[in-house]
Amino acid sequence: MRRALELAASPGVPLGPNPRVGCVLLAADGSEVAEGFHRGAGTPHAEAAALAEAGEAARGTTAVVTLEPCNHTGRTGPCAEALIKAGVARVVFAQPDPNPVAAGGAEALRAAGIAVEMGLLEREARQLNRAWTFALEHGRPFVTWKFATTLDGRSAATDGSSRWVSSRPARVDTHRLRGQCDVMMVGSSTVAIDDPELTVRDEYDLPLAHQPLRAVVGLRELPEDKRVFNDRAETVRLRTHDPRAALAELFSLGKRHVFLEGGPTLAAAFLRAGLVDEVVAYVAPMLLGAGAAAVGDLGITTIGDALHLQITDVTPLGNGPETNVRLTMRPIQADPDRHHRNEETA
Amino acid sequence: MRRALELAASPGVPLGPNPRVGCVLLAADGSEVAEGFHRGAGTPHAEAAALAEAGEAARGTTAVVTLEPCNHTGRTGPCAEALIKAGVARVVFAQPDPNPVAAGGAEALRAAGIAVEMGLLEREARQLNRAWTFALEHGRPFVTWKFATTLDGRSAATDGSSRWVSSRPARVDTHRLRGQCDVMMVGSSTVAIDDPELTVRDEYDLPLAHQPLRAVVGLRELPEDKRVFNDRAETVRLRTHDPRAALAELFSLGKRHVFLEGGPTLAAAFLRAGLVDEVVAYVAPMLLGAGAAAVGDLGITTIGDALHLQITDVTPLGNGPETNVRLTMRPIQADPDRHHRNEETA
Repeated sequence: MRRALELAASPGVPLGPNPRVGCVLLAADGSEVAEGFHRGAGTPHAEAAALAEAGEAARGTTAVVTLEPCNHTGRTGPCAEALIKAGVARVVFAQPDPNPVAAGGAEALRAAGIAVEMGLLEREARQLNRAWTFALEHGRPFVTWKFATTLDGRSAATDGSSRWVSSRPARVDTHRLRGQCDVMMVGSSTVAIDDPELTVRDEYDLPLAHQPLRAVVGLRELPEDKRVFNDRAETVRLRTHDPRAALAELFSLGKRHVFLEGGPTLAAAFLRAGLVDEVVAYVAPMLLGAGAAAVGDLGITTIGDALHLQITDVTPLGNGPETNVRLTMRPIQADPDRHHRNEETA
Repeated sequence: MRRALELAASPGVPLGPNPRVGCVLLAADGSEVAEGFHRGAGTPHAEAAALAEAGEAARGTTAVVTLEPCNHTGRTGPCAEALIKAGVARVVFAQPDPNPVAAGGAEALRAAGIAVEMGLLEREARQLNRAWTFALEHGRPFVTWKFATTLDGRSAATDGSSRWVSSRPARVDTHRLRGQCDVMMVGSSTVAIDDPELTVRDEYDLPLAHQPLRAVVGLRELPEDKRVFNDRAETVRLRTHDPRAALAELFSLGKRHVFLEGGPTLAAAFLRAGLVDEVVAYVAPMLLGAGAAAVGDLGITTIGDALHLQITDVTPLGNGPETNVRLTMRPIQADPDRHHRNEETA
């Protein structure tokens, strides 16, 4: 299963509506017969890739898969059926398929007389596809809210200048995280004022070949010459002020992980609605004493109502005077349902 | 010298106007004859303690000392003279004495025909007494400014409530740092509004036997029943708005390390005057969206004038939902002279 997880996490797999999956076929003596992984929507599933590599040798093997084999016909045929036809003797998978459309693979396999085991390294498999899993379980994309701030909570000086609050190592890291999501979201006011391009660039400041979707939320009319509308990546307008409606539209487009970049008003709307699942803050050791607040009004008036986050990671980025600190956090009890489920699987 | 540094850092040594010093006497074959360390103002110096332990056996030994032996008569006689009288053959020390009154020990020893070497582990020795060293070199106390902040730069909610922004592990750590300084400083407005007691308490919330001086800066008249005036520790009023004057008065009282705790106006005055040498920020992963700013106006209006700090340490404190992050920083180029000196000794 460790090898199957490694395969699933192969670099360069384009993101999209599909999960990362790896599959290894093992002979009775434990030796590897074949392996495969899923390369993104429209390409063969991991099981199909491994079966194709094995050919007749698949007969009698144990298929070790990171995700329950699917039981539906999408752009490719159901994997459960393919495993049955190939004569696989036993199937071991990590994570049950949370996708209601694709689930039922285990049942179909058992009905065909194949031994099925589940749950091996399930936590690791869920972590690998945490945004995808969350999205299918909740019917909306997972939302990572990222913001940059000075040590005293400012995003810009009183004259509006903000280049740069974050150091270069922190900005490079932001692009790395952007590249792991399938949507970058901003408010229409941010587009009007800051005119960001919202593309993902590598450490040499060159745009990546595969760009996430750019989503502009809000009703404000925008001139066509804004950079976010250029041809470097696709862009959608979400003409609403309702975070839930914006997420529903992105989900229907097959999007599973939204990287929310601001501005403060849009982020505050998501926070108030309990629709932020992860917070990434880049803290620059810089003091301004005044200027624009990095976080907008949350309607909180007393300390007891503060929005509490739990720190899951603290990482210094860069060296010497360029050192910034990245804090990764999750809201505490924003979604008791999710919290409960995590405990069960932990 | 490592052993001498260990001795110097012995726990329980009360802080005061004197440095931490350790001394080891070595025989010609390298074996240890005696050792000693300084226990605070009014007690024997480290060299005297080691010589007393050695008695006649001191003759012909090498004295390894963390600080240049003093050459002046304070409450105890000059150590250089004591070493000469005891017949020590050689003296090795780490840090030259930055105290203009006490320096000259090396010269006196050489004049008496004793071999003298200096600079061994000098950096470690300076670090041990960094506040004391800084204070003597600059003629004013070293200033550590500590503040607690939410992730979005707030110290209180809009209704003024602020208990607690920091988690318990962060508050315990604050008391630990307070205990390493010899003055805790606040503004008179903070006393009027928050009424802090400003004592150092241990992890069981009990006051330490030895308490730093409490200093209240500002002209505001204060009722005598404020907790800062109780008998748990000594308190001085510094009736000025000038940070430089406040520090001068504390220096004349023999104080070498000030722990500046606020409020924001007093801290901003010290920052603007370039009189903050170290910044310790306790960041709580909590969002308020509005409320009192943790850092007061610094007169900065554009990003290019931001006050830049260099992070020297990042430490998460506590576990789970109680996790806070402590950032330790120093202002960049606030004192080019000091920066230069650090490079020389690095």
